[in-house]
Amino acid sequence: MARFQTFDDSTSPAQGPKRIAKLRTELSRRGFEGFIVPRADEHQGEYVPKSAERLAWLTGFTGSAGTAIILHDKAALVVDGRYTVQAAEQVDTSVITPVQMAETSAEDWIAANLRSGATLAYDPWLHTSDGLKRLEQAAARAGGKFAPVDMNLVDVIWIDRPAPPQAPVRPHPLEYAGETATSKLQRIRDKMAEAKVDALVVSDPHNLAWAFNLRGGDIGHTPLPLGYAIIPKEGRAGLFFDPAKMTNEAGSAVGELADFVDISHFQGALDSLGQAKGKIRIDAATGAVALIRRIEAAGGYVDVGADPTSLMKAVKNQAEIAGSRSAHLRDGAAVARFLAWLDREAPRGQLTEIDAVDALEAFRVETGALKNVSFPSISGAGPNAALPHYRVSRSSNRRIENNGIFLIDSGAQYEDGTTDITRTIIVGEPTAEMKDRFTRVLRGHIAIARSVFPKGTSGAQIDAFARQPLWEAGLDFDHGTGHGIGSYLSVHEGPQRIAKTGLTPLEVGMMLSNEPGFYKQGDYGIRIENLILVEPHTIAGGDREMMGFETLTFAPIDLRLVEPSLMTADEIKWLDAYHAEVREKIAPHVDAETRAWLEKATRPVG
Amino acid sequence: MARFQTFDDSTSPAQGPKRIAKLRTELSRRGFEGFIVPRADEHQGEYVPKSAERLAWLTGFTGSAGTAIILHDKAALVVDGRYTVQAAEQVDTSVITPVQMAETSAEDWIAANLRSGATLAYDPWLHTSDGLKRLEQAAARAGGKFAPVDMNLVDVIWIDRPAPPQAPVRPHPLEYAGETATSKLQRIRDKMAEAKVDALVVSDPHNLAWAFNLRGGDIGHTPLPLGYAIIPKEGRAGLFFDPAKMTNEAGSAVGELADFVDISHFQGALDSLGQAKGKIRIDAATGAVALIRRIEAAGGYVDVGADPTSLMKAVKNQAEIAGSRSAHLRDGAAVARFLAWLDREAPRGQLTEIDAVDALEAFRVETGALKNVSFPSISGAGPNAALPHYRVSRSSNRRIENNGIFLIDSGAQYEDGTTDITRTIIVGEPTAEMKDRFTRVLRGHIAIARSVFPKGTSGAQIDAFARQPLWEAGLDFDHGTGHGIGSYLSVHEGPQRIAKTGLTPLEVGMMLSNEPGFYKQGDYGIRIENLILVEPHTIAGGDREMMGFETLTFAPIDLRLVEPSLMTADEIKWLDAYHAEVREKIAPHVDAETRAWLEKATRPVG
Repeated sequence: MARFQTFDDSTSPAQGPKRIAKLRTELSRRGFEGFIVPRADEHQGEYVPKSAERLAWLTGFTGSAGTAIILHDKAALVVDGRYTVQAAEQVDTSVITPVQMAETSAEDWIAANLRSGATLAYDPWLHTSDGLKRLEQAAARAGGKFAPVDMNLVDVIWIDRPAPPQAPVRPHPLEYAGETATSKLQRIRDKMAEAKVDALVVSDPHNLAWAFNLRGGDIGHTPLPLGYAIIPKEGRAGLFFDPAKMTNEAGSAVGELADFVDISHFQGALDSLGQAKGKIRIDAATGAVALIRRIEAAGGYVDVGADPTSLMKAVKNQAEIAGSRSAHLRDGAAVARFLAWLDREAPRGQLTEIDAVDALEAFRVETGALKNVSFPSISGAGPNAALPHYRVSRSSNRRIENNGIFLIDSGAQYEDGTTDITRTIIVGEPTAEMKDRFTRVLRGHIAIARSVFPKGTSGAQIDAFARQPLWEAGLDFDHGTGHGIGSYLSVHEGPQRIAKTGLTPLEVGMMLSNEPGFYKQGDYGIRIENLILVEPHTIAGGDREMMGFETLTFAPIDLRLVEPSLMTADEIKWLDAYHAEVREKIAPHVDAETRAWLEKATRPVG
Repeated sequence: MARFQTFDDSTSPAQGPKRIAKLRTELSRRGFEGFIVPRADEHQGEYVPKSAERLAWLTGFTGSAGTAIILHDKAALVVDGRYTVQAAEQVDTSVITPVQMAETSAEDWIAANLRSGATLAYDPWLHTSDGLKRLEQAAARAGGKFAPVDMNLVDVIWIDRPAPPQAPVRPHPLEYAGETATSKLQRIRDKMAEAKVDALVVSDPHNLAWAFNLRGGDIGHTPLPLGYAIIPKEGRAGLFFDPAKMTNEAGSAVGELADFVDISHFQGALDSLGQAKGKIRIDAATGAVALIRRIEAAGGYVDVGADPTSLMKAVKNQAEIAGSRSAHLRDGAAVARFLAWLDREAPRGQLTEIDAVDALEAFRVETGALKNVSFPSISGAGPNAALPHYRVSRSSNRRIENNGIFLIDSGAQYEDGTTDITRTIIVGEPTAEMKDRFTRVLRGHIAIARSVFPKGTSGAQIDAFARQPLWEAGLDFDHGTGHGIGSYLSVHEGPQRIAKTGLTPLEVGMMLSNEPGFYKQGDYGIRIENLILVEPHTIAGGDREMMGFETLTFAPIDLRLVEPSLMTADEIKWLDAYHAEVREKIAPHVDAETRAWLEKATRPVG
């Protein structure tokens, strides 16, 4: 039984209508035409605490991104392509209409549906400056207005809303962090000086955790302490937390660098910042408009821009890299044991998606180092594998059938590193089409792994390398090729990405995933994911400073799905070399039975 | 002798000091600390009339992009990587310091050098809203201010400034335009209605020319009528030109769609727009802040965004595509005659870069259809070929030497289409390195030509395909892979590009260049450029709407520089098929001697 993940359906479409009706009563009482409910918390995080799951509570939709707009006479839930199917299943569509973001953005829906002269209310803690600007323009296009509320209107009607989380804040040991908070703070202040700002408000708890070498447990699978920091250009920083979360160890670790302050004093601290008339940097990506307004109202000058911490955190130091390498050996051994087990058990036809999740988690627990999974496993058999962001529940749980594909995307939180790996397995015999598609996805994966590129190159520039083998067959996949990853922090971390939108230049020390895929709706899905590290790559005779990737993840890629005749000699060479390294690195850490399986699973194909 | 291009050095470093001194006198008189002189005209065009060549007149620098900042005690000329060498040669560096944009932007230089409390003046007709915002922030970082002037301070001291151009405005025949101005205007108004704007100010003369099917001759090599249009959501548009440029043909062609108005009434027309309190769209890319301020001062609401005309113009219709195909056959024949001539003449060792320009232009003139060259030819022998934006002058003119590389990038303006082609030729024997580099550039060129990609893909996403063979050798080139091109309009046209910055999705009907290169400073340069057309590309068994390219340019690629052993079978197949098509299409249009040469120059290598 999984310790770190559950499979219960936490919501039901039936819950929406009554709650939406209640919300409309509140709207009438206040003279508003509507209220906007983004899937966001006060830190604009991807993962939010239960107390901030307002969208799920109100509508039933549990996806990680989406926006509901509740008007008096209609309501929309705008979701992206990942969540089209899920949204339609989770909400009562007679009351709230799922809307495809690619066709109609939240802004377009507002512009088309808000009545002229009407007011749409919003919670200023749940929107960034840029996001709000777009919504305000949309309201203006409709001839309507946008107005902030003091208290979130969902909270007003959510009687049994869970309390905010209160997990203790603990120090993250220097052995894993690799740099003291003193040194990090100095680097942040150097960047602040360059930008001539007097203070930085750290609204992203990941940045706070990284900068002060702290970890917490407020969010599902990320060891995150929710809170804010204010870093003045000189003197002690302020760390604003619920006092129930504070620990003596954290206090003494932070020492002279910062004061722990009760979060109830945070707004007063913003007022003081404003009154000092300084220039205050607010993070464009995570800073709520409520922060900006508060500082400006008190007379401060807000400079909306990048929190320099984000980029620093993305570039891993030697301790973090060494930690990740250790974590990946440990995790690779657990994954190899799981894959060997799956190959033994699955052909009997009894295993389900949940069984697989339970087993993989159990192998990871047996490492003795697992702190948590890094996200709920995506464990999909057959058609469920075609849903890139599928999350198995008791009601969706499928048997892993013979001659079908099984995809499992999972990761672990170890104190020395966070992992994220996807493997796609055939049980029984693949079709020729499955092999063709798998081999194309693999070729895209290899193209990224082998790519070399000059300094300054962004992930956006190389993303198409992963897609080209699919494009040549008139196919593609509808997600990015890779995301950044934290060091015992979030499994998704910016600002770098390998995706159309990944405009941040890659730098030596950045870690990313490499995960092209292919999805055939209603039939099967394929994804092959390893983590990779940006490294210098010297080329004799060249005149540019070049970079490339080191692959960090070690686990076999299912050769039964590979068609070597569709690959180039260089691609086969990469695959065989990768498998030789998997064998060499993982074999010493597994039992004899797994070792025998590993030997076969990593045989050369060239 | 070339009819459409000159080789005289139009400026000298010696002219700068006196003029800059005079400008400083004007600054003192007005209490300003400095003045900013961008290489821009009132339409933010890439090519500007002589009357707007303020930067060249003041400093001596004639490049197509750059910004001078003249302060009392120092002055900088900020240029990008293309113009580093040229800037240092053309200006008196004891008076004005060339600054590398990649290291220090104009904004950074201002932030670092403007005295606190000082005021930097600017001409509001020469900056867009975005550009000005960045400069204002830079001045603010320095503790200084930014102030507009009523009359450009360079104009104040430029006694013999040329008058603005007055070339006649003529209709562009429907046979070539392919769509009536009535239809175009309807499409523009549909987009205006979508954006709920009451009027559009067309500040980009290319858009004006396209929308109203007009052409002119105000700019060197682009048949552009400089002027503005105001398109209200209903009723007749206003076309604002110098009345000396108006012709009866243009008047009757435009008919009921628009009124020609004396440009002297333009500012009054902006006031009227503002007084009507409407929402006015100003083009973000080309709309001067002076336009915005004028409308806002009169009470209007300015909506800075994309002029929808830009994207419509980029997608060529069937008549434009057919015209381009005809133009390319004609131009390809002229280029083939030139290349055959060069192969005969160059080995004697007497030809110079200017001789080559003269000869190529003469072959194009002999087509009987040449209206102009589309830009001054880049004709570089040996080390001059390593300068991607080299322009030959009498003082830089080199002999085309034996065992050296010669690069010529040129184009023609025909009424049915604009061309742009680069060929790199070896005279004598290439080195193994030259062949290696040329073959890598060719492989990049072929990768773009052969690429297929799903609908929605931008040029930024495929740009790296052109670079990958160079990256694998630790090499790269420092310019985009491709730019859009006009239809008997500018040789450079947006918004689509194949470049890191080319985020506009490619659409069927868009035309671009495909021109990867390699440059070895002080030694040689290579570029291979064809124009390409985005076309639908159906792939059996695929599930996406795919696109690909048709190559429009037909001229041999120098096989003496190709090393087939470095190419894949598919690449060789493309090269041979391309050359077969060149032979088939061009042979009927050339003399017997050229035909014999062509036969050999297009022989299969596979």
